[in-house]
This record gives sequence, C-alpha cells and structure tokens, in this order.
Amino acid sequence: MYRSARNLQRFSASLSNLRAAQRSITVRNICPAPGVLHNPLRMASSESFRIEKDTFGELKVPSDKYYGAQTVRSTMNFKIGGVTERMPIQVIKAFGILKKAAAEVNKDYGLDPKIADAIVKAADEVAAGKLDDHFPLVVWQTGSGTQTNMNVNEVISNRAIEILGGKLGSKDPVHPNDHVNKSQSSNDTFPTAMHIAAATEVHEVLLPGLQTLHDALAAKAEQFKDIIKIGRTHTQDAVPLSLGQEFGGYVQQVKYSIERVKSAMPRVYELAAGGTAVGTGLNTRIGFAEKVADKVAALTGLPFITAANKFEALAAHDALVELSGALNTVAVSMMKIANDIRFLGSGPRSGLGELILPENEPGSSIMPGKVNPTQCEAMTMVAAQVMGNHVAVTVGGSNGHFELNVFKPMIIKNVLNSARLLGDASVSFTNNCVVGIEANTERINKLMNESLMLVTALNPHIGYDKAAAIAKTAHKEGSTLKATAVKLGFLTEEQFEQWVRPQDMLGPK
Amino acid sequence: MYRSARNLQRFSASLSNLRAAQRSITVRNICPAPGVLHNPLRMASSESFRIEKDTFGELKVPSDKYYGAQTVRSTMNFKIGGVTERMPIQVIKAFGILKKAAAEVNKDYGLDPKIADAIVKAADEVAAGKLDDHFPLVVWQTGSGTQTNMNVNEVISNRAIEILGGKLGSKDPVHPNDHVNKSQSSNDTFPTAMHIAAATEVHEVLLPGLQTLHDALAAKAEQFKDIIKIGRTHTQDAVPLSLGQEFGGYVQQVKYSIERVKSAMPRVYELAAGGTAVGTGLNTRIGFAEKVADKVAALTGLPFITAANKFEALAAHDALVELSGALNTVAVSMMKIANDIRFLGSGPRSGLGELILPENEPGSSIMPGKVNPTQCEAMTMVAAQVMGNHVAVTVGGSNGHFELNVFKPMIIKNVLNSARLLGDASVSFTNNCVVGIEANTERINKLMNESLMLVTALNPHIGYDKAAAIAKTAHKEGSTLKATAVKLGFLTEEQFEQWVRPQDMLGPK
Amino acid sequence: MYRSARNLQRFSASLSNLRAAQRSITVRNICPAPGVLHNPLRMASSESFRIEKDTFGELKVPSDKYYGAQTVRSTMNFKIGGVTERMPIQVIKAFGILKKAAAEVNKDYGLDPKIADAIVKAADEVAAGKLDDHFPLVVWQTGSGTQTNMNVNEVISNRAIEILGGKLGSKDPVHPNDHVNKSQSSNDTFPTAMHIAAATEVHEVLLPGLQTLHDALAAKAEQFKDIIKIGRTHTQDAVPLSLGQEFGGYVQQVKYSIERVKSAMPRVYELAAGGTAVGTGLNTRIGFAEKVADKVAALTGLPFITAANKFEALAAHDALVELSGALNTVAVSMMKIANDIRFLGSGPRSGLGELILPENEPGSSIMPGKVNPTQCEAMTMVAAQVMGNHVAVTVGGSNGHFELNVFKPMIIKNVLNSARLLGDASVSFTNNCVVGIEANTERINKLMNESLMLVTALNPHIGYDKAAAIAKTAHKEGSTLKATAVKLGFLTEEQFEQWVRPQDMLGPK
Amino acid sequence: MYRSARNLQRFSASLSNLRAAQRSITVRNICPAPGVLHNPLRMASSESFRIEKDTFGELKVPSDKYYGAQTVRSTMNFKIGGVTERMPIQVIKAFGILKKAAAEVNKDYGLDPKIADAIVKAADEVAAGKLDDHFPLVVWQTGSGTQTNMNVNEVISNRAIEILGGKLGSKDPVHPNDHVNKSQSSNDTFPTAMHIAAATEVHEVLLPGLQTLHDALAAKAEQFKDIIKIGRTHTQDAVPLSLGQEFGGYVQQVKYSIERVKSAMPRVYELAAGGTAVGTGLNTRIGFAEKVADKVAALTGLPFITAANKFEALAAHDALVELSGALNTVAVSMMKIANDIRFLGSGPRSGLGELILPENEPGSSIMPGKVNPTQCEAMTMVAAQVMGNHVAVTVGGSNGHFELNVFKPMIIKNVLNSARLLGDASVSFTNNCVVGIEANTERINKLMNESLMLVTALNPHIGYDKAAAIAKTAHKEGSTLKATAVKLGFLTEEQFEQWVRPQDMLGPK
Repeated sequence: MYRSARNLQRFSASLSNLRAAQRSITVRNICPAPGVLHNPLRMASSESFRIEKDTFGELKVPSDKYYGAQTVRSTMNFKIGGVTERMPIQVIKAFGILKKAAAEVNKDYGLDPKIADAIVKAADEVAAGKLDDHFPLVVWQTGSGTQTNMNVNEVISNRAIEILGGKLGSKDPVHPNDHVNKSQSSNDTFPTAMHIAAATEVHEVLLPGLQTLHDALAAKAEQFKDIIKIGRTHTQDAVPLSLGQEFGGYVQQVKYSIERVKSAMPRVYELAAGGTAVGTGLNTRIGFAEKVADKVAALTGLPFITAANKFEALAAHDALVELSGALNTVAVSMMKIANDIRFLGSGPRSGLGELILPENEPGSSIMPGKVNPTQCEAMTMVAAQVMGNHVAVTVGGSNGHFELNVFKPMIIKNVLNSARLLGDASVSFTNNCVVGIEANTERINKLMNESLMLVTALNPHIGYDKAAAIAKTAHKEGSTLKATAVKLGFLTEEQFEQWVRPQDMLGPK
Repeated sequence: MYRSARNLQRFSASLSNLRAAQRSITVRNICPAPGVLHNPLRMASSESFRIEKDTFGELKVPSDKYYGAQTVRSTMNFKIGGVTERMPIQVIKAFGILKKAAAEVNKDYGLDPKIADAIVKAADEVAAGKLDDHFPLVVWQTGSGTQTNMNVNEVISNRAIEILGGKLGSKDPVHPNDHVNKSQSSNDTFPTAMHIAAATEVHEVLLPGLQTLHDALAAKAEQFKDIIKIGRTHTQDAVPLSLGQEFGGYVQQVKYSIERVKSAMPRVYELAAGGTAVGTGLNTRIGFAEKVADKVAALTGLPFITAANKFEALAAHDALVELSGALNTVAVSMMKIANDIRFLGSGPRSGLGELILPENEPGSSIMPGKVNPTQCEAMTMVAAQVMGNHVAVTVGGSNGHFELNVFKPMIIKNVLNSARLLGDASVSFTNNCVVGIEANTERINKLMNESLMLVTALNPHIGYDKAAAIAKTAHKEGSTLKATAVKLGFLTEEQFEQWVRPQDMLGPK
Repeated sequence: MYRSARNLQRFSASLSNLRAAQRSITVRNICPAPGVLHNPLRMASSESFRIEKDTFGELKVPSDKYYGAQTVRSTMNFKIGGVTERMPIQVIKAFGILKKAAAEVNKDYGLDPKIADAIVKAADEVAAGKLDDHFPLVVWQTGSGTQTNMNVNEVISNRAIEILGGKLGSKDPVHPNDHVNKSQSSNDTFPTAMHIAAATEVHEVLLPGLQTLHDALAAKAEQFKDIIKIGRTHTQDAVPLSLGQEFGGYVQQVKYSIERVKSAMPRVYELAAGGTAVGTGLNTRIGFAEKVADKVAALTGLPFITAANKFEALAAHDALVELSGALNTVAVSMMKIANDIRFLGSGPRSGLGELILPENEPGSSIMPGKVNPTQCEAMTMVAAQVMGNHVAVTVGGSNGHFELNVFKPMIIKNVLNSARLLGDASVSFTNNCVVGIEANTERINKLMNESLMLVTALNPHIGYDKAAAIAKTAHKEGSTLKATAVKLGFLTEEQFEQWVRPQDMLGPK
Repeated sequence: MYRSARNLQRFSASLSNLRAAQRSITVRNICPAPGVLHNPLRMASSESFRIEKDTFGELKVPSDKYYGAQTVRSTMNFKIGGVTERMPIQVIKAFGILKKAAAEVNKDYGLDPKIADAIVKAADEVAAGKLDDHFPLVVWQTGSGTQTNMNVNEVISNRAIEILGGKLGSKDPVHPNDHVNKSQSSNDTFPTAMHIAAATEVHEVLLPGLQTLHDALAAKAEQFKDIIKIGRTHTQDAVPLSLGQEFGGYVQQVKYSIERVKSAMPRVYELAAGGTAVGTGLNTRIGFAEKVADKVAALTGLPFITAANKFEALAAHDALVELSGALNTVAVSMMKIANDIRFLGSGPRSGLGELILPENEPGSSIMPGKVNPTQCEAMTMVAAQVMGNHVAVTVGGSNGHFELNVFKPMIIKNVLNSARLLGDASVSFTNNCVVGIEANTERINKLMNESLMLVTALNPHIGYDKAAAIAKTAHKEGSTLKATAVKLGFLTEEQFEQWVRPQDMLGPK
C-alpha cells in the first residue's frame, strides 16, 4: 500500500512535470515524428502498450519496443539532459558483443543451447546497431550503469523471446536476469563494455585518424624539405631552419601521439567480466572470466584478456583515466600544431604569410583572399574539449568508494567523446587543410633574406664584436646585413655571400 | 579551373570516405528514416534537390530544407562527431530572437517593411523551435560560429522568401546577407546568441532547478530540526548537532549557489550586437546596438543591455568563463551534498544508516532493502562533468587572438551543458530523493547515545582530567559513559543525566 | 608501554630515514645555518633542547623555538615536500590577528586580563611577522589545519609565558588550549584564518596589482587612440580599428577582472569563528562569534562579518572555490592580453611588428634587436598556473564530508598562490612592459594601407560586385586597391581618396 | 642615452617599490640574516659589491655571490612570488650535470682542457648542491628559462675562474657564454635540464615511494587474506569478500601506478641537448648531441638518449605532459585508496569501524579514541594538488609557438612538485598509517553476520522467490536471516549453516 501510494505520488509529480517536459520536447526534439519514443509523455499517450513489471511493480511499455519495465522506470526517474545525453551507442554495441560472448560461454557451462543461441542472435543485432532505437537511457543514471545493463538484458531477452516465438514481456523462455545476465553483474559487465567500447573507438576512429594526419604531415615535411625559412623563438625572429624541419617537428608529435595512445592500451584490454558484484566472481564458474575475454577478443580482433585483479577493475577506472591522459597529451600536440599553422598562414598581407592554406568556404562576403583557418579552429576547439573531458574523467575516477566506482557512465562518455573528436578532427584537418597547404616561397625568402640574425654565421670569420656591430647598425638604419657589413669595411660583398649561407645553418657541422 | 579541380578532388575524397560514413551511419544514427538529412551521402542520392550557390560555387541542397549552400558546405567540411555534437538548439533559438530584434530595428532604420516583417515571422518560427530540423551543423566548425550564423541567415531568408511567395534559393526578395544579416557580422551575432542562450538556460532551467532543491532541503531542515545526532569531522565521531542543522548547511550552500550564479549574470546580460566585424560597429547606424539590446530584453524578459565595450565582447568570453566558474562552484556544492546524503543513507545494516533514502528502482535482483542512492550518483556524475566542462571553457576562453576569440561554439556548448545538467539534476535529485528522505531516528539515537564525546559536557563540572579518565576507560572497556562515570565514583547517575544533555550542546550559551 | 614501543619504533624509522633526510637537506636547504630548525635531524642533535609534552608523550623541542610538542610531532609525521611547501606565512599572520581578536573578546567574557593581554601582545608579534621562524609545518598535514592551529597556540602561549616571566613549555600561566584556543576549535579558526588571509592578499596584492595594470593600459589606450591599424579576426586581416580601441578591450578586461574579484568577496568576508568543532558553537558564549568578527574587521580594515551559517562555513569552502573561479577568469583575461601583446610585438622583421616592446635584458648574445617578450611569458605562465591551482581548489572543495572539509591547507595555499602571482605579475608586467610599449606607426600604417579589405568602404558608392572585382584583382596582381580601382575604370584617384578613409571606419554612422 | 634614461627610470621605480618590498620582506622572509641575498634592496645597500656587466650595461653584484649581471637583472625584472617560487633546486642540479657533460664533450672537440676541467669541477659543485645559495631566480621569468641558464653559466664561470685563480666577473679565462654555454643554447639546455630533473625525481623519490607503499599494502593484503567482510557497492551493503581481496585491489592500483609512470619515461629520457637555438644544432658539431646524452646517462645511471627530433624537443613538452598525465592517474589511485581507508577506519563508534588506524597525534584534547586519519588527509590533499598541477602543465604544454615552447619553468615546476609530493606522501602514508593498520575483526564479523545479502547463497537450494521472502521478512522485522528462514519453515538451522557460508562466496566455483 505504501508502495502504491508512492507510485501515485510519483505519477502526479509526473503530471506536474508536464510543462517542463513539453518545453523539453519543443526545444530539443532532434528526431521528429518517429523519434518520439524518447518522449516521456508517451507513457501517458493513447498509443499501444504492453504491461511489463519489475520488482517495483507494473509499467506500460510501448508495444514496438523491446525494452522493459526497468528501462521505462529509468526514463521516469532520470530526466536529465535530454536525447543528446544518451548513453553512447558505442557502449550499447559493446554490450552486444559482451552478451554474445557470455551466452556462448554459458552454453559451454550448460545453458540451454536454444536459449543461448537466441541470445547470441539478438546480441548480434545489438552489436550491429540494428536495435539502436531501443536504448533511450541517458548517461545521468545510476553510476554503475545498471540501468543500461538492464536495458540491454531486457532488449535481448525480448528479442530472443520473439525469435523463439514467445510473448514480449513474458520473460519466458528467455529471462533478462537469469539467462541474458547469467554469471554477470552490472558491476562487471558495464566496465567490460566500457573497455570494449573505448578500445574499439581508439582502433576504429582515433588511431586511423592520427595516422592519416601523420602521413599527410610527413608528406608535407618531405615536400618542404628544401625551403629555408626564418625560425621563431619567443614568437621573435631567430636563426633559420627548413620548412620541412618545422613540419618534421609536427610529424614527431603525431608519431608520439600514436605511441602514447598505444602505450595506454594494455590496461584497457583487461576486462572485468567474471568479477560479478564485488570482484570475487560469486555465481560464476572457474574459467568463465578467461573464456569470455577470449570470446570478446575473437569477436573484436583486439587482444582483450581477463583483468589481473577484478577488485581493481570494478572499484577503479584508472585504466581509462590513463587513456584519457594519453588523449589529453594528444590534444596538447594538436593545439600546438593547429596554432602554428594558422599563425604561419596568417595574412594575406598583414600576417606572417609563410603558408597558403586551402580555401574551403567563404570567409567573408567582402574580401577575397581572406582565408579563415577554420579547420585549425575546429581542431583547437576539439583540443580544449578533450582537456576538459580529461578533468571530468579524473574527478570521476578519483571518487570511487569501496568495491565500486559509480561514475562509470560519465567516464566512458567522456573518453569516447575525446577519442571520437580527436579522430574525426584529425581526418577533417588533414583532408581539408594539411594536404592542401602550400608554401609561400616568395614571402618565406623575403623574410629570410631580411633577417638580421644570419649575422651569426660571421662570428667565426670576423669575431662576435664586429658581427654585433653589423647587426646593430643594420637594425638601427633599417638596412641589410650585407650592405652594412660592406659599408663598415669588415668584409667584401663576395665574402659575405660566401660566409652567410642559410643553407649551411641547418645542422651541426 | 583550379577551383573546379579542387572540387572534383574533394568529391572523390568524399567517395573514398564512403566506408567511414557508412560506419558512422550504422553506429550513430539516432534518427532513422526522416533524419537522414545529416547523412553526408544524401548529397549524392537520388532524392530531390535544388541548386544553391555561394561565392565558392554551386551545391545541391535537399528540396525540403530551408538552408542553403554555406550550410551544406559546412556539413561537407566538418564531419566531426556526428549528430550528438550539433550546435545546441538553444543557440539556434537565441539566434531566432536576435534576428527578429535586428529586423525590427533595421525596419526603423529604413529596411523595406515587407522584407522586415517576413524576416520577423520566419525568425519567430526559429525561436519557437518549429524549424529545428533545418540546423544540421555541428559545434566543431569555424570558431566564430560563422557557419551557424549563415545557416540561420539562409533558413530565415528562404522561409521569408516562401512566406512572400518567392522561390527558395533565389535570395530574392530576402537576401541572407543583405537583409537577414543587415548591420550584423557573425562576430557580433554569435556572441550575442551565446549570451541570450546562456541567460535563458540559466533562468529557465538552472535557477528554477536550484530553487526547487533549495526549498526541498529547507523543508527537510525544518522537519529534522529536533533530531539530535552525532557530528562527524575527519569522517570520525565528533560532538552532536541536529539533523536540521546539518541539512541547514546544505540549504545555505544551495542558497549561495543561486546567489553565485546571479552575481555572474550582469556581464552575461551585455550583448555584443552592434560591434559587427571587429567591434567598431562598421556598417551599423548609431543607436542600432542599444535598440537591438532593448528589443532582445523585451522579447526575453531578461535585462539585456548593449555591451559596454564591443572589442572585449568579441575578442574575449570572460563573461562566460565567469559564469562557468559559478557553475563550477555549484557543482562543488552538489558533490558535497550528494556525497553526504549517500553516506548518511548507507546501509541498510553495515553503513552509517542515519537516513532512509527513497527506493526508486530495483537495486539488485537478490537483496531487498538494498537502496542504491542512484540520484546521488547521477548528481555527482553531473558535478564531475561540470568541473570538466569548466576547464574546457577556461582553455577556450584564454586562447582568443586579437579582435576575435574563435572558440565560441565550444564555449557555449559547455556552458549550456553545465547549466542544463545542473538544473535538471537538481530537479531529479529533489523529486526522486530529497523530498522522500526520512530520518532513521532509532539508529540516530543509538549512535548518539553510545558516543564517547558527550563527555565534553562534564568538563565544567568535574574537570578535564576526570572527564578524560571516564572517556578513556569507557573506550577501553567498551562500556557507556554513564556506567563508567558512576563506576569510577566521579558522579551519580542523576548528575550524569542532568549534566550530559545533547540537546544543550547545539549552540553557544 | 605500547605507546612507548611505538615511539621507539618511530624513532628508529627516523634513523632509517637519515639518508633521505640528508638528501633533502643537501638538495633543498634554502636557508643555511640558522634555518636548520626545519631539519628533522635536529631532534637528535647535540644542540640545546627542552622537553615538552602533549597527550601522546614527551618530545624534545629546540630551546630557541616557541613551538611545542604538537608542532614537533607534525614535523616528524609529515615529511612531505620540504620547506617550499610550508604553510603560507599569510595564514600564520591571519592567525595572529584572529588570536588577538579572540583574546580580547575572551577578556570581555571573563578571561584573566593579564593572560589576555599577554596573548594579545604575542599574537601581535605573530601578525607582524616577527616570529616567522617558529612555524615550520608544511601544508601537507591534517586536512583541518589542526596542527598549524596548535603551532600557533603553542608559539603564542610560550611567548606569552615568556612575557609574563614564566618557563617555556610549562603551559603556565598561559595554556595553549585553555587560553589561547579558548572558545575556539581548529575547525572554525583555520577557516577563519583562511578567509582573513585570502581577503588580505586580495586587497594588498591582487587588487592593487590589477589596478596598476588597468591604469597603465588605459593610459596606453588614450595614447594610441588616433593610431588606425588593421584589425585581425581568425588571426587574418580584417577591417580597421584604432590601436586605442584595441587596448580599450584590454582595459575593459582588467576592469571587469577587478569587478569579478570584488563580487566574490562578500562570501569571503564571512568568518567561521564561533562555530567551534562542528558549527554549533559548543563551548562558546552567545555573541562571541559576532564580536570576534567585529574585532577582526577593525584590525584589518576589511568588512568581515560572522558567517550566516557556521555549518556551511566549516563543511564547505565554496566561498574560496568561488574566489578561485574569479582568479581563474582573471587568468583567462591575462592570457589573452599578454598573448596579443607578444604577437603584436613580434619581429623585429619577420613578425607582425606593430608594437615595440621595452628591452629589459639580453634576449640573445648574438642578435641585437631581438626583444624577447619575457614579461608576457611570465604572465602567461602565471595564468596557466592559476588555472591549475583552480582545479586543485575545485577538487579539494568538492570532497568535504559531513561536518568538515579536510582539504583546508591545500585550498588556501592555492588561492593565496593564485592571488599573489596574479598581483605580482600584473605589477611586473606593467612596470617592465606595458608602460614602455610604443606603437611602430610606420609599420602600422604600411600594413593598414596595403590592406585589401578597405575596399569595404566602396560598397555604398560603386556596389558590392565592383568592389569585389577590385579586391580580387588587387589580390591576384599584388597591386594596391587604388591603382586597381583606377585601372579598372570604376572611379578616379580623387574619389578613392575621398571614399576610402580608414578614419571613417571606426564606428557606426 | 635612451638606455641610461630608462635605467634611471627603472631605478626610481625601484625606489617607489620600497614599501611593497618592505612588506614583502616582513611577510615572507623565510631565511633571515644570511638569506638576504634575495632581497632586492640589497642592490642599494652598503654591503660589498663588485661590478659585472652584460650587453645592457653594468650592475652591482654581491661580492659573495658567483652569479653575474644577467642574474641580478632578472631579480630586478621579475619580482613575482618571492622565495618560495624559486626555480626548483632539482633543475639547478640537473644543469650541473648537463654543464659537466657538455664541458667534457667540448673538451673532446677541442675546448682548452684547463678551462674544461675547471668547468667540470664547478659544475660538480652545482650538481652536489654546494652552491644552492647562488641561484636566486624565480620560476616566473622568461618562459625559455634563459635567465636560469645564464645564472648557471655565470655561477660556473665565476667559480671556475676562482678555481683557476682569476678575478670574479672578469669572464676570463672562463666565459659564461663562450665556454660554459659552448655548443649550447638556453633553448636546448633548459629542456635537457627539465628532463634530467624529472627523470631523477621520478627515480629517486616517486618510484621508491610508490614501491614502499605497494609493499606495505601487499603485506596487509596477505595479513588480512582470511578475514571475510561485507562488500559495499554504491556505498551500500553487498556480497562479501575478504579484507585481503579488498586490499589486493589497492595493491594492484599501486602496481599499475608504477607501471604507468615507467611507461611514460622513454620519451622523458630523450634529451634536447645539441638542438641549440631552434633545433637545427647550429654551432654544434656532428656527434655532440649523442655524446652529451651518453655522458648524462653515465653520470646519472639513467638511460638518457639524444632526442629523435630536436624540433619537437624544443617546441613541445609533450613528454612532460604525458608524464604529468601518469602522475595524475597515480593521484586518482591515491585518492581512492586513502578515501577508502579513512571511511573503513571511521568511528570509533558511529562509523564503519572495520579498520583500526594508527594513532599518531592528538586528534582532540577532549575525546580519547578519536583517531583522525591525518595521513589519508595529507595524501588526498596531495592528490588534489597533483590534479591541479596537471592542468597547469597541460595548459602550458599546449601553448607553445613555432620553434619554442615558453612555458618551460612553469611546466617543470609542476611536474617536479607532483612527483615529489606523491613520492613523499606515499612514504609518509605508508610509515605512519598503512603499516600500522589493524583489522577490527569483531566489528567486521558482526557486520558480516548481520548482513541480509548472504541470502544469495540460498538461491540454488530453495529458489529465488523463497530466498527473497526470507530477506524481505528479516529486513522488515529486523531479525536474522537464519531465524527468519527457520521461522518461515523453508529450511532447518543445520541446512542454513551448511548452505550460507561466507567463506564459500569469495570466488567462482
């Protein structure tokens, strides 16, 4: 009675939230007509429903959805942030892989093959993205991700029931907990899905993106290797280097970006599956953890293994904090590279003007030649975002308690976002900017030849003091080094040309 | 010719991206059938198109969309992050308000009333969210938000053309630049929309959410004002306070949260509109800036004014960094409150157990009574996210150059996300947790009465040394203070009961 | 016996730490001979000692120090970070002020005037910095700052004993707890000292520093008001503004920096004193809290008041997180300003070169004229540090539990560091850079006159299309706008000179 | 004349700063009498001086100091933060090692052996910490660290001159630039010193500290391996695990902390030396870079190598951002471990009370048994600081421009601070807390036996529904599982004792 009174109360609270909900729909409805599934009002609409229940009671579930009561309950209890805040679909797909692997292992340990096979088939559909509409939950739910695990269990069980000719919501013959979640707990499956999703995103999006950028920069470094230009330190004129050398620094940064990400992966490949509720593996069988990791490795082609210590794997997410740290370092590299390129390409007449960046879109309706380095801007914004995401991951990672860290959905959301944005931005930056960069050799040569610090090359021949006198005089009089040197009588024009050769200043002797 | 060669090259790059794009569709397609507008492949599909052009050339635009060439070009050049990374719809709505205000002021300054009125009507539809499907661009575009400004200009001009019976894409009689963007630049309109969107979200979502939480906590503080409990410092037992006092601390935190956010608003109410390209107001009329701010204030009911210094308003976003700092402080408060509540409600048998938290969903399929403090978890995850968002805003805000900060879309995305999440989570936390919290008075009393530090009250009567002897003995022997005190012969049972009264320890004398 | 066994064990651990300690001395010994007081080895040396004791037992204390057993014990238990990590001296001075105020109020409430007056005198010496050598503890101690509070109590009591002719370490006639700490707890005094120190540093260092910078920038804005220069957006050439307008943006940023800091102060002026152990004010008298706040206000000249809610004031440090947020925003402003100035001053020949920055030190032993913008570099490093400090404060502020936040020393260290660095750097940046900045008018004019986007001014006269044709042709041919315009036959030289006037492009019409 | 006018002006500014300076002295003077060298006023005092000069002119240098004009000039131009903000002494020592290595290699390439040997001897003294008083510069100087490099060059040259019987300040026979800095630039030496200092601190302080903590935790895990306790997820009661398993999770975190730090080191071992001004190696000899790296490796015993790409090594500090990311992950682990331990040790009567933490100092003058987990507090404060430091490093690392990152001193300060604090705190936490932790087995058993979720073990025997009925009834009636189960008639007391055995719930079957 107490319970039903509470439910009534909750329902009326629900009604009083109508106005807020309507605003929410108006403002944020990204998916119109067919997307209304995420509309919490649907619960009260006249459309077709079935009744499902969990241990808290019965709830109406849309007839065309595979999810069940616990999913609906979560949408009622966590109206935070709207559809853009949904659990990343990569996590759902990772769950599909995991549930398939677990079902196959459970079959080895005695689960009815008919049930196991139906689960495998349904899980395959989840992993393939065929059931994406059935996962409406947001990140801002329970910190263990339990509700998403149950969402997955419910969808797979109902879909498996359907495959086997049963009735949706009957939990028969495929039960979401007893069969789909067999030998599992949210506490080990969610972190397992986190690692699968993160590793997959790194391999499918981030690393290919970085490699693309690396190769394009390396090609530019080669293309520019004979273009000698003025160096800049403290943003001020300095001794020369080749444009190829300058790009070579960027190449090295991206090369090491790839290495950094890879060096964080061994601990991401460790899977928590088999730890169940607190890490002990209660209610699993000896060997289950290892077999599941093997299956996941086989399904993904990535070297997943079972976690060395399941207690650490549930209670901490240091591995993802570490990966986020690698992504943060990548962001730092990207900020430097994109900043340099936009400044070197600044102009057309009042900037440094050494690079000509591709023109991709109208920068202004007035002035031709105004190239806005928009790809650099997208990249540096991404870099700032990744740095912020990293702090969110750090704070979440540090606040676990006892046997469980309960910032799981937030952590994986940020890690996936960082990996995706860096990967995508690398490709966009490469295709729409880097590959089209040209050197403004005329400008580069002009700046190069006017530079006062080429005087450095005279030190061994006429000594520091006379060289300094030349430079100071030229600076004061706005004249060239050569004219000044000759005028001061320190050397001849021929000597100057022989001794001051930028091309000889590019390396040790 | 060069240009068309580049376009060809870009097109073939587009084809080579087919595989990536397909993956993207499979993985991320939140909106099925009718949502395909965001699908880059659509450009090459057989559906119906019209041709629009910008200064870079012609492009196919879906017939059923109001946007034009520059929007399509942005979708081609910035394939970063997918649909979840779109420009927040609040920014689009804010643009609707701004474009309406500008059209009305432009009419005052001589813009053809027929054109102005059509713009106003179309802008109203944008502000009302009726055209949300026509804004496909992601945050990760040019850092000035120019492409979103042009997206808005294109949609409004085409919709106004339609209203006036013209032909979509003809730019006649309503030109996106000459009319919709009249007296404006992306550089002043985008920051104006940022401020409108931020202030609106603060007033519609954040402040009501915080007020809701404040009131619920204040009601609890009143309800619990006579329940005396043990205090805890350093997580260890300390002298008593009332549960109402403890909740009173939370009330104060939320009260100050509201004040903090409000105290950041004066600088958010300043609008950049009228500064145009670099802050000088070139191509605007004297008074335009002030009139637009007045109109926006009237339309929103918020006290917007024209920015005191337009150069600062374009080149820096300190006002939003400041607001983000206020949100960060709110997050800090929320983390404390939600953490306390989950620890005070921990149990049911092996935790502190002083609070009974509402049961909202199955915490486990095995154990009744296991209440997971899921609302606290959602709130603390939100807090961590806001802290991360704040760093992203800080980094972006610090990296402006010369007359323009080009981290605008990233900054506003994070500020809006923080405001929304904190506001929504406050309501969810209130409705699903705070209002239902009950005190476990039996447990509270038990802990209270067993506490050794009540001995403090004896100091004035028997002196510190004897009081200490009582406490040390009771601790060593596991006995009560009273029994020990009597046993040691320092006082009588009656005296103990008279002197050691927790209710007298709750304030100064 | 157990206790002494533990002490023995600790002592031998102490010996085994000899090597580490010696390294520590060698490496970090900033203060030679007389500074050895911080040397933990001193405890075992042959120098002169007295014996003091606390409830854990006896310890040797250097004869020439006023501190007692609890201070020595802390140096033994917290060997973290060395002398550079000591509690900021501003906190010690703030404690001096607080202890004086408390003694005076306690005298009103009946504390023996002789004792009270001696405490006041000793506290004055602490506040005046005369006893700085007697505060050896590091920040990394207990999170409540209890050990520093006891350090202060011990030093004041021993110094007061000395004043009254007593014996150091006797706790007679002035007891560190019963008299110096009367009506106080570490839990309310440490946060009180935090607020006093923070407010004082803000008023003595930060705000004057910002004002100095503001005034210098305002003077430059005035000086440069008639210098018209090219604007830059996206780092690219844009329409003109005056150099005074550009500096005016910086002036506004600093003006608002001052406002931001001030708007955070009301909650910093709230003092926790009177809350004692958990906020209830147990063992204080009614009125004590208010009187202490009044005294502190009178002593400092700052508008301190007693905290509205003592529970919040002990358990949270939101007020300092908020202040840190304001400092973070200031840092963001400083990064922008210093970055702009170094880029505008870049060169001498291959940079933007619009500003001539003061030459303060040799930038290179080779090249004259190489001005490194070193003050900009110091300022931007400070800005980065403040952003980092802010995250530390945020993390610490969010992790309080129940009645006490125990990240107090860390929080105040970072807030003081940020305030000091920003204040000092503002003065250094002003005196050594801003006041000496000169405009390179020749360069500015050259860039200005070469600029293609002045063509914007022709739009009203010859229309956008012809204007665009002029600009495109000039860009392609590398010629001037005027020559091109005349050559194309669109206007006469006289018309060009009449219509294209940068000085008319600096504001609305 | 212009120059001397400026100097006059600067001097008078200096005088006008007298008040500020005096405050500074009063407030911050950590080192009294002999430490006054850092007092900027000393320049004008009557003590003994010599005259040194640099290219900007002559300056007075204290007679008893080895540094020269450029060092003095920096103290005049950068009055930011005071003595606690000095360049970390580890950087100075690293410079000693580098300068020695360079001198030896330069000797191989022809530097006068007499000069080289004197440099080596002086550099040895710097590396040994014998000349620490001669390095007064603060971190907040030029962002390249040039002034510290010159400070080192000046000290070594003057000390070498003294060794060779010359006159201080004469630059003869050992010139600071020509000899001590030979084949070097600040731009490559400072990053080299950064890497040497960071790697050394990691190896001397951090890794030993972490290993100490690891071993102590591992010993506890072994000691506690047979103590079965209740698990907690979501801070709520969950299924059991052993206390040894719980500590085993911490052990794993620390083990991986060590691995994480080590995995960041390969890129820290790369040295920039040989890159000189912009990375080209101008003015060095072929082989110089490799030989210097070999020497440094030999002198330190660490596997330093020459950087693969010198452009990257000067222009970016990604390697230190990466290392800082590893330290950030370590901090996250430490926060979790220290938080758990203080909560598990909370009490003595009103907390979780499962652990008994060592009593190290008086927690309160009133209540015996009040153990404040002060070591946990120091550790968690350190963790928060490291997270903040990491953001400072990230921001600094991302803001390099062109051929040089000029946030070098700030970056290394933070990295060294993080490494030192984590290392020291690990040792302090281990010695003063971890090694003394005892299990409160009585309390652990009581909580264990009262736990309702042991009912899980009955599922296979009597089915989920009956098990649930037992648990629900027991929860409602406040009774034990066994009594309830028997009362409900589901099983006998003997069966209960046979089936519900916590010791069988600690692993898979």
